[in-house]
Amino acid sequence: MTAQDCAERVRDLMYAEDSAAQALGIRIDAIAPGEASLSMRVQAHMANGHRICHGGFIFTLADTAFAYSCNSYNQRCVASAAAIDFIAAAQVDDVLYATASEVSRGRRNGVYDVRVTRQDGQLIAVFRGRSASIKGQFFETE
Amino acid sequence: MTAQDCAERVRDLMYAEDSAAQALGIRIDAIAPGEASLSMRVQAHMANGHRICHGGFIFTLADTAFAYSCNSYNQRCVASAAAIDFIAAAQVDDVLYATASEVSRGRRNGVYDVRVTRQDGQLIAVFRGRSASIKGQFFETE
Amino acid sequence: MTAQDCAERVRDLMYAEDSAAQALGIRIDAIAPGEASLSMRVQAHMANGHRICHGGFIFTLADTAFAYSCNSYNQRCVASAAAIDFIAAAQVDDVLYATASEVSRGRRNGVYDVRVTRQDGQLIAVFRGRSASIKGQFFETE
Amino acid sequence: MTAQDCAERVRDLMYAEDSAAQALGIRIDAIAPGEASLSMRVQAHMANGHRICHGGFIFTLADTAFAYSCNSYNQRCVASAAAIDFIAAAQVDDVLYATASEVSRGRRNGVYDVRVTRQDGQLIAVFRGRSASIKGQFFETE
Repeated sequence: MTAQDCAERVRDLMYAEDSAAQALGIRIDAIAPGEASLSMRVQAHMANGHRICHGGFIFTLADTAFAYSCNSYNQRCVASAAAIDFIAAAQVDDVLYATASEVSRGRRNGVYDVRVTRQDGQLIAVFRGRSASIKGQFFETE
Repeated sequence: MTAQDCAERVRDLMYAEDSAAQALGIRIDAIAPGEASLSMRVQAHMANGHRICHGGFIFTLADTAFAYSCNSYNQRCVASAAAIDFIAAAQVDDVLYATASEVSRGRRNGVYDVRVTRQDGQLIAVFRGRSASIKGQFFETE
Repeated sequence: MTAQDCAERVRDLMYAEDSAAQALGIRIDAIAPGEASLSMRVQAHMANGHRICHGGFIFTLADTAFAYSCNSYNQRCVASAAAIDFIAAAQVDDVLYATASEVSRGRRNGVYDVRVTRQDGQLIAVFRGRSASIKGQFFETE
Repeated sequence: MTAQDCAERVRDLMYAEDSAAQALGIRIDAIAPGEASLSMRVQAHMANGHRICHGGFIFTLADTAFAYSCNSYNQRCVASAAAIDFIAAAQVDDVLYATASEVSRGRRNGVYDVRVTRQDGQLIAVFRGRSASIKGQFFETE
């Protein structure tokens, strides 16, 4: 099994269980070892008290891209920490794109960067997440 | 009008517009100048591909507590950056409590800390947000 | 041996090897399990191109307080990540005080907060560090 | 005056005042608008209580690269916040290279990324800094 096959299989198994991504309408547009590209349309229920997209949903999209990239090796990982810088606001009906790439990956921990952009290419946010390996795999390997 | 009256009025006006907080079932349990306490029950649609609460929703709860605390002076503020450390996982049906307090508040920027705990007191996450003032108020002051 | 005795012994052994803290004139004013209070006078060579204390030295003081607090259990730890928010500038000859406290401590990782204040009580910076255990102890325990 | 000329002139004026960079032996190897490459040899006085380079000095090098990149437009800026992830340890006599690049730059705030590597190309740390404009320029423009 190639690393790319592995990443695709994890994506399928992970997404099937991923109620949050499904409920938010997040799509996994591309996957590769240590990389993932996702998209999400900002829905009306994601607006906050300023009537712009709640930063929590921008974070959630980025965090989901992070999760698909760091889990792509079939070793379960979770975020131990994450940080986000918000660059520009997003509005309802904007489509947001999150692209995750691997900065570093060790036995127990990894660091991943995610850029979130809008349909017109405007940078919306940058996210950096730290992964920690936990027990378990998505599928058994012989 | 006292600072406490101001904070309560902002909370009411902000929450009425806050589709995200409403849709997530977030409750504003307490408010004071620079402080806010919120709670949220983890719902099934908040579970991720590991079947635990997606970190994005823990972040969103914390970010919402941050927003109510930093906006409590009736000067509109948004998050320019935020960081979260995840301490323990939350499960579906857990009730999460987020308590925001002010670390520092300047003319343009502020720093706020949020602790997220579970119904049994276990610390779930710590969040630190940076606020930036934007134009506008929630209500006019004479 | 009490936890307090352990913390004090680690402090002594660690400081004896700590060329950086010594060279910067950092003093370990107090130590306890998971806690440390340090101080440092801002020297002329710590000024940056704006003629104020270089943020790197404020970070270094905070990071040192973090190190003494997370190593106080005689299990060697290093920082895997840290973040700092700068609140106010420090000038040459200011005395800075860094107080570290434990937010969370697990088997492998911990989270520690450090507040840096000035001689007049003004908050200068807040720091949050993540510790990771590495192999080794400062002294053998039977 | 071109943007590149401006960046070089700021570098010269800033470095002449930058006691910290000079005292640490930091060299400004390259400068461009929004970008800077620096290097520093890890000296014996930079070792911490584990006998490896104190993270504070790795941060200081990265923060200095950040400072030269964000000030390169001749508008004075300081760091309002910064975060660092430590990937690998550095030893005394290692030479560290810090390369800063601009993620985003607005009227008041910017975001800059810095990668710190070792002489053999090993990634040592990644740093992300937030700049805030303050009053003043390094040289007068007519």
